Amino acid sequence: MLQESKRDLVYTKAQKLRDELFNTDVSFLMEAHSALSAKVVEEAGFRGIWASGLSISASLGVRDCNEASWSQLVDILEFMSDATSIPILMDGDTGFGNFNNARRLVKKLCQRRIAGVCLEDKLFPKTNSFIGENQALADPLEFAGKIRACKDSQTDDYFCVIARTEALIAGHGMEEALTRAELYQAAGADGIIVHSKKSTADQIVQFGHLWARRAPLIVIPTTYPDTPIEVFRAAGISMVIWANHNIRASLKAMRESCRHIFEDRGLSRVGKDLTPLKEVFDFVGQAEMNEAEEKYLPGH
Amino acid sequence: MLQESKRDLVYTKAQKLRDELFNTDVSFLMEAHSALSAKVVEEAGFRGIWASGLSISASLGVRDCNEASWSQLVDILEFMSDATSIPILMDGDTGFGNFNNARRLVKKLCQRRIAGVCLEDKLFPKTNSFIGENQALADPLEFAGKIRACKDSQTDDYFCVIARTEALIAGHGMEEALTRAELYQAAGADGIIVHSKKSTADQIVQFGHLWARRAPLIVIPTTYPDTPIEVFRAAGISMVIWANHNIRASLKAMRESCRHIFEDRGLSRVGKDLTPLKEVFDFVGQAEMNEAEEKYLPGH
Amino acid sequence: MLQESKRDLVYTKAQKLRDELFNTDVSFLMEAHSALSAKVVEEAGFRGIWASGLSISASLGVRDCNEASWSQLVDILEFMSDATSIPILMDGDTGFGNFNNARRLVKKLCQRRIAGVCLEDKLFPKTNSFIGENQALADPLEFAGKIRACKDSQTDDYFCVIARTEALIAGHGMEEALTRAELYQAAGADGIIVHSKKSTADQIVQFGHLWARRAPLIVIPTTYPDTPIEVFRAAGISMVIWANHNIRASLKAMRESCRHIFEDRGLSRVGKDLTPLKEVFDFVGQAEMNEAEEKYLPGH
Amino acid sequence: MLQESKRDLVYTKAQKLRDELFNTDVSFLMEAHSALSAKVVEEAGFRGIWASGLSISASLGVRDCNEASWSQLVDILEFMSDATSIPILMDGDTGFGNFNNARRLVKKLCQRRIAGVCLEDKLFPKTNSFIGENQALADPLEFAGKIRACKDSQTDDYFCVIARTEALIAGHGMEEALTRAELYQAAGADGIIVHSKKSTADQIVQFGHLWARRAPLIVIPTTYPDTPIEVFRAAGISMVIWANHNIRASLKAMRESCRHIFEDRGLSRVGKDLTPLKEVFDFVGQAEMNEAEEKYLPGH
Repeated sequence: MLQESKRDLVYTKAQKLRDELFNTDVSFLMEAHSALSAKVVEEAGFRGIWASGLSISASLGVRDCNEASWSQLVDILEFMSDATSIPILMDGDTGFGNFNNARRLVKKLCQRRIAGVCLEDKLFPKTNSFIGENQALADPLEFAGKIRACKDSQTDDYFCVIARTEALIAGHGMEEALTRAELYQAAGADGIIVHSKKSTADQIVQFGHLWARRAPLIVIPTTYPDTPIEVFRAAGISMVIWANHNIRASLKAMRESCRHIFEDRGLSRVGKDLTPLKEVFDFVGQAEMNEAEEKYLPGH
Repeated sequence: MLQESKRDLVYTKAQKLRDELFNTDVSFLMEAHSALSAKVVEEAGFRGIWASGLSISASLGVRDCNEASWSQLVDILEFMSDATSIPILMDGDTGFGNFNNARRLVKKLCQRRIAGVCLEDKLFPKTNSFIGENQALADPLEFAGKIRACKDSQTDDYFCVIARTEALIAGHGMEEALTRAELYQAAGADGIIVHSKKSTADQIVQFGHLWARRAPLIVIPTTYPDTPIEVFRAAGISMVIWANHNIRASLKAMRESCRHIFEDRGLSRVGKDLTPLKEVFDFVGQAEMNEAEEKYLPGH
Repeated sequence: MLQESKRDLVYTKAQKLRDELFNTDVSFLMEAHSALSAKVVEEAGFRGIWASGLSISASLGVRDCNEASWSQLVDILEFMSDATSIPILMDGDTGFGNFNNARRLVKKLCQRRIAGVCLEDKLFPKTNSFIGENQALADPLEFAGKIRACKDSQTDDYFCVIARTEALIAGHGMEEALTRAELYQAAGADGIIVHSKKSTADQIVQFGHLWARRAPLIVIPTTYPDTPIEVFRAAGISMVIWANHNIRASLKAMRESCRHIFEDRGLSRVGKDLTPLKEVFDFVGQAEMNEAEEKYLPGH
Repeated sequence: MLQESKRDLVYTKAQKLRDELFNTDVSFLMEAHSALSAKVVEEAGFRGIWASGLSISASLGVRDCNEASWSQLVDILEFMSDATSIPILMDGDTGFGNFNNARRLVKKLCQRRIAGVCLEDKLFPKTNSFIGENQALADPLEFAGKIRACKDSQTDDYFCVIARTEALIAGHGMEEALTRAELYQAAGADGIIVHSKKSTADQIVQFGHLWARRAPLIVIPTTYPDTPIEVFRAAGISMVIWANHNIRASLKAMRESCRHIFEDRGLSRVGKDLTPLKEVFDFVGQAEMNEAEEKYLPGH
């Protein structure tokens, strides 16, 4: 069932994402990698979805180095967007090429009512930020041109282009990170992600104080997950992304269930850990289908 | 990482599936709905994968009534097949139309090294067997023609076309089920699924005795999951399909994780229930990528 | 280059198609089967495009009996729509299944700014109307339910659902054709196509007089191409579709060129029949790319 | 209708392409950009198809700078391959990224029975060779690594990886072109394309003499089309590619037909320039469908 309605067109998903970014309190995005997981995120109460490149890649059985094509990702995002009414921020890696590839992506995302895209200042094809050291960064001016091209191409006025700098992870230091963030904001970025792989939040907290809310600041605390929200709030951070926790919960559960079923040659141990089939049907909207058959299928 | 290799081409996945079908003991297929879940099935030790229509639909956020197109399913199956080395049996519903649509599907599956397809004698678009009562069945002669067309079109000699009769679920009785199964076997079906939604195995056990191993017999004990394997074995059943248990394990786990993270605005409760990120990288083959960069990227 | 702009969003393609339908004079749609041919149609001055099922199928090397999936067609339509600013009416065959498949298609088309869809009262999978005799028709009430479901699902208020009756071609006579057209209009159809394979326009002219402009009436004069426009106008016909002439022009030209190049082992005979390469670049918008590189690529 | 058969599997398309490459006389590939144009190439007698990046892009209404994703191209190539029995050499541009993207492409092509791929030593995203001057080239060692990765990944032993050097067009001179060609051959390339945009064949003839048949040499005489075959033969050239002539013939014809139909509001001028509809049906295999319905549809 497609969730799109005229009401959504009035208060677009992109507006919703923008409202979360400019909210006075810290907002949260939760990772999803499929329409089903996206529905789970919405059901839980989250007001936004992080369409993680790593998670979607893993779900497709491929690695997080642009093995899936950008259009294969867009196909998955379309199912995710159709199935939910909260905004989706796409993890767009480097934009899958130069400014022209990135702006084409933006047009395709707007058609599918994706609320925003995050682009990072690395080189195509990307390597996951947690793999290896000292990854090469994009030329900052070229990356700023890419951001500007994306902003000039969006067909939804509220679409958000988020610029993510990997300067800290790449070992370029705080000053370079700030310079890049400024450049990207000047190019039109609606928000900045500063990424860190330190095991504490100190680095991004420092950045937050220096950045001083010049534009919404977003963090991805994968390596410093236990940081209290108050710390983020005090550092002027607008949004926190739980970037890969659905795929990791899913993988854990499936591995356990499969192991038990295989060992037992039966379901004795997994029964209570499974959502009932009836709930699966409900979750994807079977009730609407029953009503629609009444309405549109004569003699049904 | 694509798992395809020359060795696979020698002992094809279709041969492997055929060997499971004609095995003297009961074999098991476990449901998967994505490349990731397919890899989990293989890792657990299963020797075959059931690419469930219901599960893949749910994963896409759509209903099990052919809302996804057949080519969208084939795209997902290709990722699943690329990521694994055990055979995949596709739940092909009604074949997505008439004999011509079904045989086209078979050719597309053979190209992607899918080992077999299961077709059911219902009408397109299908309704899930567990929804409603007295669903209309296909004309048995037309369905037999569809099976024959599929067998004549496969490009892998070992590809398996499994005929699934819904006669019992549709309330047509044992005799009709047997007549249909015979007809489908005569048309070339490599195995028969007799589906039942009784809460015990009595119905399919009775069918099994009457069928008497004329061709491999397969069951899907979704509504009678606690049946001991000995019962299936005694009834002459070759293969048992755990048809939807990965998607249900995944949904349960993601719902719980999302609820906890949302409520806690943090990860305090979910930490131990998540696969570590490092394991996710390992699972999708990061090690091979590191080796390949050494080998093919000069100066790396 | 994507042609979508905010101006288009104000005066949507669907509105443009609707204006052509309700125009006081006869309008024309010209067939296209690819983005390139769609651009040719726009360049020639036509104000609308017929995305022919037969032509797109032929272009894909498949037959006009739903061998391509609906989503494969939608992918092609997206390229066509992105490349043009005039409205596209999709030849939607039977809607690729029941009311639910058809209404899902409508949502996908609206996302891609396709202006309308034409659905015909035959059975899935379809057979081309010019092949064989006495093809079975859909139950008229079920087909009316399908039209209503599509109208209730469109997300662009101006999207056009055109109902095409094959009653005349199927040999059911004028009265049946009128009854069906009335039923479909009552269900919400924005226009009616009455299809005929007679070698003169007499049949559709008679229908036109009896129909008396109750809703816009559209014809496809493939078998009666020499009918003067005045005859259509006098019969109250709003729109004429040249349904397959681009694919036939293209096929003729490519066959001739290939034959000459093959025979001559060179280009001596074909030179003057080829669009210069420079014009191909211009036609797909190279100039905009050059400007964009100046604007977005630093140091270019 | 899919043309795949067991016979094809015995003498694979890749073997056929290899035979053309190592043929003692000059062979010819003719451009196609769709399944229909591919069928035209085969019908004319050609023994191989050049799946041109420029032509396919133009057909999709996009520019020849990797605006279409690699997987969108593979989808089109699959239709082309299914519709024909002669080998297809894909114009693979730069391989759509680094060695890993390129080798993934090779696996996808082998699954679809594409006979070979041509990779060029430029940077992703590419610019068409005839646009602008002094385009940057790939590092030759990195490009050699890409070729080696592709060769190591092919699942059809006869699959051909052709290395195309743009050294001459980029203004690097004959020596650099030779050095690169040697390096690529040493890395496993099955043939070399040396591209030139001079208006005479002098440059490639000189290269041919210096190269002296160390590996099959291929040329694309778009800018020097009138060169006699004897000149190519004498220069040791194995294969000539007519790289864009079907799309240019098609565009010319469609433009003319559309203009005439639009101006005349009728078909008076185009009639004789169109392939009859009946021939279109024949061309895509309607006869086989009629036979199949007899065979597989009871009571038909």
